[in-house]
Amino acid sequence: MSGSLPLFSEQLKEAARFLREGNDFLVVSHVSPDGDAISSTLALGEILTQLGKRYTLINESGNPAKFAFLAGDRVILNDAEEPEVSFSQVVTVDCADYARLGRVRDRIAEETPLLNIDHHPTNDAFGTVALLRPDAAATAEVLYALIEELGLTWNRDLATFIYTGLLTDTGGFRYSNTTSGVMKIASKLLDEGVPANTLAERLLERLTFTQVRLLQRGLSTLALSPDGKIAWVSITHSDIEELGATSDDLDNLVSYPRNIEGVELGILFKETKPGIFKVSLRSNGEVNVAQLAQAFGGGGHVRASGCSIPGTLDEVVARVLEEAGKAWA
Amino acid sequence: MSGSLPLFSEQLKEAARFLREGNDFLVVSHVSPDGDAISSTLALGEILTQLGKRYTLINESGNPAKFAFLAGDRVILNDAEEPEVSFSQVVTVDCADYARLGRVRDRIAEETPLLNIDHHPTNDAFGTVALLRPDAAATAEVLYALIEELGLTWNRDLATFIYTGLLTDTGGFRYSNTTSGVMKIASKLLDEGVPANTLAERLLERLTFTQVRLLQRGLSTLALSPDGKIAWVSITHSDIEELGATSDDLDNLVSYPRNIEGVELGILFKETKPGIFKVSLRSNGEVNVAQLAQAFGGGGHVRASGCSIPGTLDEVVARVLEEAGKAWA
Repeated sequence: MSGSLPLFSEQLKEAARFLREGNDFLVVSHVSPDGDAISSTLALGEILTQLGKRYTLINESGNPAKFAFLAGDRVILNDAEEPEVSFSQVVTVDCADYARLGRVRDRIAEETPLLNIDHHPTNDAFGTVALLRPDAAATAEVLYALIEELGLTWNRDLATFIYTGLLTDTGGFRYSNTTSGVMKIASKLLDEGVPANTLAERLLERLTFTQVRLLQRGLSTLALSPDGKIAWVSITHSDIEELGATSDDLDNLVSYPRNIEGVELGILFKETKPGIFKVSLRSNGEVNVAQLAQAFGGGGHVRASGCSIPGTLDEVVARVLEEAGKAWA
Repeated sequence: MSGSLPLFSEQLKEAARFLREGNDFLVVSHVSPDGDAISSTLALGEILTQLGKRYTLINESGNPAKFAFLAGDRVILNDAEEPEVSFSQVVTVDCADYARLGRVRDRIAEETPLLNIDHHPTNDAFGTVALLRPDAAATAEVLYALIEELGLTWNRDLATFIYTGLLTDTGGFRYSNTTSGVMKIASKLLDEGVPANTLAERLLERLTFTQVRLLQRGLSTLALSPDGKIAWVSITHSDIEELGATSDDLDNLVSYPRNIEGVELGILFKETKPGIFKVSLRSNGEVNVAQLAQAFGGGGHVRASGCSIPGTLDEVVARVLEEAGKAWA
């Protein structure tokens, strides 16, 4: 992130002015939107409604089915819909760089004023005005400050959108970004009638029948290294085809081997195409899995990374385990 | 709970006086202690240390292995240890009635002054002094108020104990008892350095190898009613024996069928003894499972209940599904 950004309090004033002075906004979040992207989009809609502005909400693929209950009768377009939408200002939410807007970029003329609201530490401060807080847990946390700056009125929907962003980007208040500040905001939002229980159930616990069958299939392959420090599961391409699964359905599978008592390294081998395995690596801290993934041309974080390796399942497992063994050598 | 209890602020003063005036305490939580019971026990230890008192921490079975990391070098006795412990006052934590102390009751002379600290709405206000808040999410939330009343100094351990009680009794800030007040306290505790991420991982996500194998075995039996509203899984007695599992290992299994999209009623059939099935029933709200369990001589809550039914698996499943069908009739 640019070192020359104004103080956050100054950024807030500029962002508030940008919203107050414009009249017709396109609000865009990133491709493959997650809970924070969708709820930040919806929150911007509510903010602009309260400010009496016209706006259109959009992202490349629209609102995923699992977030439909949040939107109610609000519309988030996908890029194939309504090609003639006109607007004179853009607000991006939760997009670390301009490329994250995907095909929606083609709608935006270069000179259009753009407000970039985000929390990713890697945000490159694109746009005309930036509202960036790299230490925020979610874009929703940045929006909380903006709503207070604008002096808007809290209501149950607006509070629910902000809570949803906090809930999903902290993994249900479980990740290390679960700060005192996050919980303080959550407390205030609950006073506005946010249904914490319903949101947690629908956003964090709900599974499809396919996901449960895939989980069962994956767990049936569970293996443990002789020292109990590495656990892994695998899903073959024919499993995925047979169960009619998508790559989203596999999101959480790697957490099972990682969460086993005594395990330091949890791995998922997922055959995305015949003979090509996407390998997800999760560490409990002892092993640097960014390095491990790099050995196979992949990358990521110290505790969560991935790479792609061709071969048979047995070959790929053997190669990764051999390389992982070096981490303890 | 007795309607004649003093105001909570008065109860706090009395409880504080009880602790300040005593010198030698036995701190007891309930049989089969959960996260709130253990962390409330440990918090009482810390409170009494700060007050300069002698004390012994105990419950019928001692500190379960999964909470050992919380205690560090603090000792929570089980009832078989140190039969000659002497004390002149008792504090019970998280016990809704005196019977919940289990065999530890045999150590306590009838005339011993007893402070009863709890949050269960069913607490019968046993003991000499009661500190009861039926709208608190956890006994830890009651203790937070007591610590503030006593003017004690927060430190990382004390904050961690209170946070643990909130975390575990709200199901990781997911149940409907996740109130604004709970989140406000959580925010203050995080300021004391509570490791939110580590606690969530160790207390909510960690699994044993046996639990994962049992989960896989259970999920392999997943079945769905033709209308998609009832989902169920089963575990046979031979599964349990073969995997060397305990009844704790099965705690979370029923949540999988219940969490499937569109499912209103999730059921686990667990063959605890050959030919005897313990049936766990979980509703998403449409079906009153307390009534359903009552039809088989069981009981529980509207959304979570259980009963025991003899028969073969096929017979028991058929009987429960037939009865459940009446709920929609």
